[in-house]
Amino acid sequence: MRVLGVDPGLTRCGVGVVEGVAGRPLSMLGVGVVRTAADDDIGLRLVGIERGIEEWLDRFSPELVAVERVFAQHNVRTVMGTAQASAVAMLCASRRGIPVALHTPSEVKAAVTGSGRADKAQVGAMVTRLLRLSAPPKPADAADALALAICHIWRAPAQNRLQQAVAENRLQQAVARQAAAVKGRTR
Amino acid sequence: MRVLGVDPGLTRCGVGVVEGVAGRPLSMLGVGVVRTAADDDIGLRLVGIERGIEEWLDRFSPELVAVERVFAQHNVRTVMGTAQASAVAMLCASRRGIPVALHTPSEVKAAVTGSGRADKAQVGAMVTRLLRLSAPPKPADAADALALAICHIWRAPAQNRLQQAVAENRLQQAVARQAAAVKGRTR
Repeated sequence: MRVLGVDPGLTRCGVGVVEGVAGRPLSMLGVGVVRTAADDDIGLRLVGIERGIEEWLDRFSPELVAVERVFAQHNVRTVMGTAQASAVAMLCASRRGIPVALHTPSEVKAAVTGSGRADKAQVGAMVTRLLRLSAPPKPADAADALALAICHIWRAPAQNRLQQAVAENRLQQAVARQAAAVKGRTR
Repeated sequence: MRVLGVDPGLTRCGVGVVEGVAGRPLSMLGVGVVRTAADDDIGLRLVGIERGIEEWLDRFSPELVAVERVFAQHNVRTVMGTAQASAVAMLCASRRGIPVALHTPSEVKAAVTGSGRADKAQVGAMVTRLLRLSAPPKPADAADALALAICHIWRAPAQNRLQQAVAENRLQQAVARQAAAVKGRTR
């Protein structure tokens, strides 16, 4: 399966595409960062993130988008921007009927390094090894996005097809419900 | 000027359109709530919010969208959903080149009631009076959206046109920058 991992952020939003199945060597199809200028208005930054994510979805047609689950507990100053960037990534995927999976930072670290408390360097080193790259992807956000995609492929091998079918079905239902609601209102 | 106020939320996203200028009686053009089902996936809920906001933008063509500024400090459990819904509202507006203004809950309360600590009932009562409605808009999220729009019209009478010009200009610049970046990458 082909997974786009997204490490959400307004200044640097890491993106990485990994293909493969659990138990076999994985391949990296692409890695990068969607950047927006810190001095731009928040609305324009979100438009920039949307454009960037759309470009990656167009280019790689992933079957699933894995996004880091954002918590409000830590880093209060940056968490709002992270939540907003992740909302845009989830919106872009769901709009196309692509299922979205959320994984916590410690799930991702544990999946690729064996420890939920691993540091950035360790995650980067394991991503490099697992994808047989010549050097760790930079910046760390890009490596984290690849780690998210790897984590998803390894954690949910059986669940993924089911999840995709459910996502497509739910999107159709939601569209039908909203169409019915609009019809009701304009009567 | 015509302002769409948005009180962001995933379950109930209040929306209200107010027209007028500071110092003159204001008119309500529309009020409502965009709802999404709590048991839907987060991605689909964001798609539902997007559809709802787009519908209001299409219907009323506001010159500005006023959104409640979300803080991470309080209500940790709901704040992430609020941040995500507000991101979608800001994205929808900015994509069209419509400027976005953020106001804190206490700025809004102070603008319509004279006290930054006013309760929901007081805000509802003042919105009813200021817009000459027959009854307070329900639910409270709808009244809060109208209060946001009123707050914006009263707080920034001179600033608004400037802000609109700046937003349009910045959108053009951002589009040009991104086009240049894509061009650079594909060379």
